[in-house]
Amino acid sequence: MDNNKRLKIIPLGGLELIGMNITAIEYDDSIIVIDCGLAFPEDDMLGIDLVIPDVTYLLNNQDKVKAFVITHGHEDHIGALPYILKELNVPVYGTRLTIALIENKLREHELLDVTTRHTVQFSDIVKFGDISVEFIRTNHSIADAAALAIHTPAGCIVHTGDFKVDYTPVYGDPIDLTRFAELGKEGVLALMCDSTNAERPGITNSEKTVGKTFDSIFADNRKQRIIIATFASNVDRVQQIINSAYTYGRKVIVEGRSMVNVITTAAELGIIHVPENTLIDIEQINDYPEEETVIVTTGSQGETMAALNRIAMNTHRKVTIKPGDVVIFSSNPIPGNEKAVSKVINELSTKGADVIFQDAHVSGHACEEEIKLIYSLVKPKYSIPVHGEYRHLKAQAKIAASLGIEKDNIFILKTGQVLELNEDSAEIIGEVENGSVFVDGLGVGDVGNVVLRDRQRLADDGIIIIMIAMQEGSEVVVAGPEIDSRGFVYIKESDELMEEAYEILTDEVGYCMEKCITDRNRIKNILRESISSFVWKKTKRKPIILVEILDA
Amino acid sequence: MDNNKRLKIIPLGGLELIGMNITAIEYDDSIIVIDCGLAFPEDDMLGIDLVIPDVTYLLNNQDKVKAFVITHGHEDHIGALPYILKELNVPVYGTRLTIALIENKLREHELLDVTTRHTVQFSDIVKFGDISVEFIRTNHSIADAAALAIHTPAGCIVHTGDFKVDYTPVYGDPIDLTRFAELGKEGVLALMCDSTNAERPGITNSEKTVGKTFDSIFADNRKQRIIIATFASNVDRVQQIINSAYTYGRKVIVEGRSMVNVITTAAELGIIHVPENTLIDIEQINDYPEEETVIVTTGSQGETMAALNRIAMNTHRKVTIKPGDVVIFSSNPIPGNEKAVSKVINELSTKGADVIFQDAHVSGHACEEEIKLIYSLVKPKYSIPVHGEYRHLKAQAKIAASLGIEKDNIFILKTGQVLELNEDSAEIIGEVENGSVFVDGLGVGDVGNVVLRDRQRLADDGIIIIMIAMQEGSEVVVAGPEIDSRGFVYIKESDELMEEAYEILTDEVGYCMEKCITDRNRIKNILRESISSFVWKKTKRKPIILVEILDA
Repeated sequence: MDNNKRLKIIPLGGLELIGMNITAIEYDDSIIVIDCGLAFPEDDMLGIDLVIPDVTYLLNNQDKVKAFVITHGHEDHIGALPYILKELNVPVYGTRLTIALIENKLREHELLDVTTRHTVQFSDIVKFGDISVEFIRTNHSIADAAALAIHTPAGCIVHTGDFKVDYTPVYGDPIDLTRFAELGKEGVLALMCDSTNAERPGITNSEKTVGKTFDSIFADNRKQRIIIATFASNVDRVQQIINSAYTYGRKVIVEGRSMVNVITTAAELGIIHVPENTLIDIEQINDYPEEETVIVTTGSQGETMAALNRIAMNTHRKVTIKPGDVVIFSSNPIPGNEKAVSKVINELSTKGADVIFQDAHVSGHACEEEIKLIYSLVKPKYSIPVHGEYRHLKAQAKIAASLGIEKDNIFILKTGQVLELNEDSAEIIGEVENGSVFVDGLGVGDVGNVVLRDRQRLADDGIIIIMIAMQEGSEVVVAGPEIDSRGFVYIKESDELMEEAYEILTDEVGYCMEKCITDRNRIKNILRESISSFVWKKTKRKPIILVEILDA
Repeated sequence: MDNNKRLKIIPLGGLELIGMNITAIEYDDSIIVIDCGLAFPEDDMLGIDLVIPDVTYLLNNQDKVKAFVITHGHEDHIGALPYILKELNVPVYGTRLTIALIENKLREHELLDVTTRHTVQFSDIVKFGDISVEFIRTNHSIADAAALAIHTPAGCIVHTGDFKVDYTPVYGDPIDLTRFAELGKEGVLALMCDSTNAERPGITNSEKTVGKTFDSIFADNRKQRIIIATFASNVDRVQQIINSAYTYGRKVIVEGRSMVNVITTAAELGIIHVPENTLIDIEQINDYPEEETVIVTTGSQGETMAALNRIAMNTHRKVTIKPGDVVIFSSNPIPGNEKAVSKVINELSTKGADVIFQDAHVSGHACEEEIKLIYSLVKPKYSIPVHGEYRHLKAQAKIAASLGIEKDNIFILKTGQVLELNEDSAEIIGEVENGSVFVDGLGVGDVGNVVLRDRQRLADDGIIIIMIAMQEGSEVVVAGPEIDSRGFVYIKESDELMEEAYEILTDEVGYCMEKCITDRNRIKNILRESISSFVWKKTKRKPIILVEILDA
């Protein structure tokens, strides 16, 4: 087989940790990288702020990497760019809003002057050596979302990005189904299609249906203040709130830093249309009767620091909930956030707010029938489900099989796996270095599994610190022992326990002196084990026990 | 108003922390306590195993407390009993399975010989001075569930317990609607009704519908091994699995300690009927072809230690998933467990299992129309929604109002609030001591908010320990300084950072000596602040910084 004629598809994130969407497409000596997302930490990644992909493979092949091509401006597709571009400074391509949101990020990281961005139009084709990338219009919960057709000598790969089929989008045109059909007719080697909603039958409703819900809620609550929580980046959703507000004579306040940023950017690009005198600043809120205002806010996922949570907890500087306020959740909880969302709802309810969900949200992802439509138009030889947990990818694989794609031609790729393919065959030929890098504060990669294991034990049972100063090289104790703890028991309540531990400790230190034990490690072990077994017997807890010997 | 004629209702848990169901009913010098449940810790209660109610109010009124009357045998209604009975040893009343499950618990805590239990029949009335308690049959996701009619000179309170209306239950009779109707006719002062599903319209399906689903899955998968995960205490569910297994010629293996315990107890009481030679031990599993077995297991909530998770992770000693295995989740994720459940599903899917949910579970709680039915039969003067988050209680309050109960007669009680009521009036007259007590290992109440705050900081950013030994009372350093950390950074990767910190530390110690500073607290502050600000500047992290000075 002629290896030069085969194409490689290598996901470098996205399955094990949802959100870290990044895929390398390699042909001969060219690599382009689709998306560069970040993931939010799992529950067991204590103290971690963000997770970004390990791109060792790309760094080892730096000379081949031509560009990042980005499908849309969501965090799980652009969030890791500022970190990765520091190590791998190649041009970034995307549509208008996508590039504008990336530039906001790069500005924060002071990378604007040292990186290169290119804004593309839909239908543009960008050439990178043997690979050329075509941007195709789709619909999603953010404007300017694109699918990619990646043309190579080995064949064409269609990557849908995150998409839905919306025949009546709020902004812009419907998804370019015609182009998907043309590509299908020309021949597509592989389809990489969004799996998020593959388990859901039927179709995802048009974004416009939410506008109707807003209208009817606004009509029913003319005497109430209205607060609407939604995703910061859902510009079309905010547009519809503005439309309803305008119709019902209300002023709109946008609250929450990330939302203000996105809406400002979208307004500059003309993606959102705000009638004059509709938008007011939060500082002006008291100039208007409450029933003539609507507050659009972040925090629909129950985020502790977001504006909605501060409003619910009475810690917001301008807005306090009072009985009768109407709060609309224009969102669904992302898996894992259900409890946090419920907590905010309970707070709002306790304060007398009327909380509404019904019909106030639609998904941005294609359901089963839309996925079938794309497959039927694109007619790929190979199916490579992307974007979702394993169960979702598997659900799409079933859909693909039901449409007649041979099971052997469907590939659910694990992160790092290399799929080599052309018209003749496709096979997983190996795995490249891959993984997750933890971002904690300013540190990138300095917190690993050892630190996380320690944090878990500290979180579960705390730490006991034992200190002693000894004459260097001898068994003579010159100070201590002392014992202290953090996160173990409330010491004032547990005087007895800690006193007993102290007695055991002095006994053991006495034993070591008596036996002339000078080996520091041996002494540490003796002290650690005696305290550890005492603590376990008394409390059934396993705090970290740290023994420190100072040499005097 | 004659205070002797008023009755007090005092929830001592259940709203702020879901699960801790316990309510005192007080009349004159008698108190009976309905249920005594535990809660599982919230995400921010690091390292805590269980949470039980603070019963200071009951302890302060020990001479009045006559009994615990228990509605059913779920953890959130009986789980705190072993802890509370140690302090407040009064008799416990409940129906057969309820008392049997309580006895299992008391046996584990070695309390069987020192406590008193009474098994009651449905329709029994138990007298406690002026208060008498009648047990009324209901339906729920555990057998022998009861509602309570609490008769007092001030009027009758009906407490539904957790219930649904099942006209075709798997075991026993349908809910005793006739008795609810009679009580309504006699006159009911207040209804305390289960709110869990009050937000859901319609009705909850009969448990029997799940049996039909099992039959059809068994019929469709005659060549596959079947594994079914459900709640350990849902005896009727297990009964239906056994029925389907018997019909389709499969042996049943019950796996998971808590489920084995409940099923053994239920079998002893004749609540579950197992045809001969149907149940086999896990040790015999390899004696039968896989397609002739069905494994019923715990772990439907994604619990890390449960059998299903071990099976999914390939760490189960007897069962390994292979492609084609059918795994049924006969459960819904309890809020907060969604992500853990999804993780198990992804593991199972990755290993080729076919995971099924559809129609394999029904709730044990009444929906809107069933709640309306109970209100319409009981015709209470006052409505006191119970069991659920605030949003659920509020949803029931809305239902009650829609049925014509005056808004002023509907009370959503916060934990500790005292509602005093009789035929003439009802009002919240104050609040008694209340709260949560954390159980961590063997410790009950020795971990409080200070310890939890420390654990949170330890979990987020770890700890830096600074040690120094000084001549007592002087500024002379005899050993150290030393610096160490846990859970902060991976030290080998961060040599430079820690070396720089060490240099700052020695500089500051030098400064203290030079300035002849002998005040230990002042030295500690100087060292702590210098390291803290250095670490923040370099990492934007805030580990606990512990400075220990040993006196030599």
